[in-house]
Amino acid sequence: MEGFLKELGSIIHTRDATALRVKSADFSWFSPIMSAALGNRQAEVILSPKSEEEVVRIAAACAKHRVPLVARGGGTGNFGQAVPLAGGAVIEMTGLDRIVFDKGNVTRAQAGIRIANLDTHLRKSGRELRMHPSTKKLATLGGFIGGGHAGIGTVNWGILRDRGNLLGLRVITIEETPRALELRGDDVNLVHHAYGVNGIVTEAELPLAPAYEWLDTIVVFDDFGRAAEFGMALTTSDGILKKLVSVHAWPVPHYFVPLKPYLPMGKAAALLMIGAETREAFEALVKSFQGKVTLCVPQDNIYEYTWGHTTMHALRADRSLTHLVCIFPKVDTLGSIRRVHQKLGEEAFLHLEFKRFNGYMTAEGVPLFRYQGFEQITRLYRAFEAEGARIANVHTFLLQNGGMKDLDDKQIGFKRSVDPHLLMNPGKVAGLDDLPGGISGATLEAAQLPASGWAY
Amino acid sequence: MEGFLKELGSIIHTRDATALRVKSADFSWFSPIMSAALGNRQAEVILSPKSEEEVVRIAAACAKHRVPLVARGGGTGNFGQAVPLAGGAVIEMTGLDRIVFDKGNVTRAQAGIRIANLDTHLRKSGRELRMHPSTKKLATLGGFIGGGHAGIGTVNWGILRDRGNLLGLRVITIEETPRALELRGDDVNLVHHAYGVNGIVTEAELPLAPAYEWLDTIVVFDDFGRAAEFGMALTTSDGILKKLVSVHAWPVPHYFVPLKPYLPMGKAAALLMIGAETREAFEALVKSFQGKVTLCVPQDNIYEYTWGHTTMHALRADRSLTHLVCIFPKVDTLGSIRRVHQKLGEEAFLHLEFKRFNGYMTAEGVPLFRYQGFEQITRLYRAFEAEGARIANVHTFLLQNGGMKDLDDKQIGFKRSVDPHLLMNPGKVAGLDDLPGGISGATLEAAQLPASGWAY
Repeated sequence: MEGFLKELGSIIHTRDATALRVKSADFSWFSPIMSAALGNRQAEVILSPKSEEEVVRIAAACAKHRVPLVARGGGTGNFGQAVPLAGGAVIEMTGLDRIVFDKGNVTRAQAGIRIANLDTHLRKSGRELRMHPSTKKLATLGGFIGGGHAGIGTVNWGILRDRGNLLGLRVITIEETPRALELRGDDVNLVHHAYGVNGIVTEAELPLAPAYEWLDTIVVFDDFGRAAEFGMALTTSDGILKKLVSVHAWPVPHYFVPLKPYLPMGKAAALLMIGAETREAFEALVKSFQGKVTLCVPQDNIYEYTWGHTTMHALRADRSLTHLVCIFPKVDTLGSIRRVHQKLGEEAFLHLEFKRFNGYMTAEGVPLFRYQGFEQITRLYRAFEAEGARIANVHTFLLQNGGMKDLDDKQIGFKRSVDPHLLMNPGKVAGLDDLPGGISGATLEAAQLPASGWAY
Repeated sequence: MEGFLKELGSIIHTRDATALRVKSADFSWFSPIMSAALGNRQAEVILSPKSEEEVVRIAAACAKHRVPLVARGGGTGNFGQAVPLAGGAVIEMTGLDRIVFDKGNVTRAQAGIRIANLDTHLRKSGRELRMHPSTKKLATLGGFIGGGHAGIGTVNWGILRDRGNLLGLRVITIEETPRALELRGDDVNLVHHAYGVNGIVTEAELPLAPAYEWLDTIVVFDDFGRAAEFGMALTTSDGILKKLVSVHAWPVPHYFVPLKPYLPMGKAAALLMIGAETREAFEALVKSFQGKVTLCVPQDNIYEYTWGHTTMHALRADRSLTHLVCIFPKVDTLGSIRRVHQKLGEEAFLHLEFKRFNGYMTAEGVPLFRYQGFEQITRLYRAFEAEGARIANVHTFLLQNGGMKDLDDKQIGFKRSVDPHLLMNPGKVAGLDDLPGGISGATLEAAQLPASGWAY
């Protein structure tokens, strides 16, 4: 480590204990299982490069001195992807926050830019990102691409991995003489959602969407089944502009304290972003479902109660809660949702994020429940699957067990070519770079949860 | 009629024989059955108002003198909706071609504006219509709304009747003292696709789409099944920008003479409009289907070989052809397409327009075949239905037999309130305003074709 540090020269770095603790954590505490499995692993140094040239110097030094490294964005991931399991260096990427170019409906920015900053810049000229996570204010572009999969806007554009949502990535390899690769076309998915195990992303090129005037909107319903039907109807109303369709069974809305005036006790609620110019058409749809609009204003913060943020608000109120994540089937989507809610609604409080997934309209379900151990969670996984939902395992930090990423030969070959010394985020790819002692304890148990993966 | 003409004052009108013949026809000659049923019905006078005020005077005069009237746009309809069955007046709306307002993502224009003129104007400031018919250059806005249902752009926005695609309509009633109604929300569908039987549309308000840079693109495939699979994959690739996905079995491409250099003999062809900024992603998709791109340029005329124009090109080459129109099922869409093509492909040359319909991705199928009479067409209808496709009857001019429009009590009540003397496009609503002698001959036979309608 000392030899490594000497080579860093003017690159800002710190070994301050608080910094090491804070910059070695992410939001994996959403899962009590992962928390136990990850323990208090920490980096030995936090590096804060300000340019790609500094990133290249870091990559070369890591390769030369065999120092493990984890690239870190805003630290908002829920899956332990930013936790350094083998010590070494955390590279804080937020210093690389420049917009590289911006023309027409395409923008290219450095990986460390905060997504909200990029989006605010784009909206000034009538464009915006196709999708962003609920953590838009904290998360970086590179972090979203490396560890996220979808978000607000996915109801229009599908998920990040869908062809066309990510035009290019610039990646620095971890070699004594690092290379800068430009990945385009299908190759971007080698690095997307790979938890940063295969190169340091320094730039990303993205297609843009038109910046409509979005209205933060809440509609309440007497029962959840009706709210879910409405959510699907809105999602499949091709003429009505929307960016977010998120439906919550009571008591989930109870956790959204600042929204209390708009969320009557006991009611199911749809949290939405609706385009202003089709507001009348939207209101006609609401009326046909006997919903009641309690909020409809242009403020752009309602998304911070949806997707991953829903769990965060719930955990603020009750730390005994955790969640699981499923995708409902493309056929009989609403039937599956209804059955799951009827059978398990008392134990698992459901919310839905409607989305385009593999070309179909469906809903992601994120039930919140009080964690009682592996048997309970296994039982819940199986119960959801029995009703047609497929489970993404959000209680493991192992890349191939999450269910989103298929680590085939091409992926493994690419990993070896860009990171020949297996230094990048070690411990996240089982079988390739297991930490000493192998996989055991909570890690093993979590990896063995009967998750079915995310595909149709 | 003479009393009526006296009241017109300065309103431009003609009784010239050629004008009467030309302005009393539409593209219903696509159907030999409808041609026989419609005969050579003609108007007695063609009126060319230049303002809404003149339209109001015409409406009042028609009511007072009980003169039947048909509102006419570009005359590009395929269903006889512009043919005056009871003589009277044809009101040529093309003089009302003003843009009323244009702000943000909403525009409002007079009904007689040519769609291409409106679209060209909008594109100068980065916006365009959500959808337009293949007859965009000739067709008027009001004609499209009154007699069309979908078009280029439907693959993104669904069909015209979907909530949000039509924000408002201004309609003049046919009464001694005409009223001007503003229809908004769900009420716009009272008049949309009603063949102009319930009021004269003078203005329409529409939401706009961003004007991407569209590339006219052709991809060829060795076989039609593969081309259809590709069409569905492109349609459901949520991240790839497209505005048109039209897939043609050989020999349909053979009829597209000007495109001959891009359409190899015997190959199936996909005619597409692709967004320039996701071109690389599109090419990756093409590659994965072993397609070959033969054209990819920004020229904006390929749409004139798709939708209704396909039939027109085929009929130019072979007047013995006609078509039918079906919608493939939302489940097993490709299976249904494949079976229909296998069983009937030698007799009925299929092309597909992929579209969003009732919230799902599916394809409209328009097989071309050499017309041999009612028995053949009935057999084809039944054969398509047996494989899961639903048939819209394009061989009848009767509104409720087409399959697109449900004439319920609300519709009939609205018709009676805006047109109490039943003067508007008489003969198109069976049972309400049948012409003397009732429905008989080819009209009756066509109305009895076993069409299943257009809904899931």
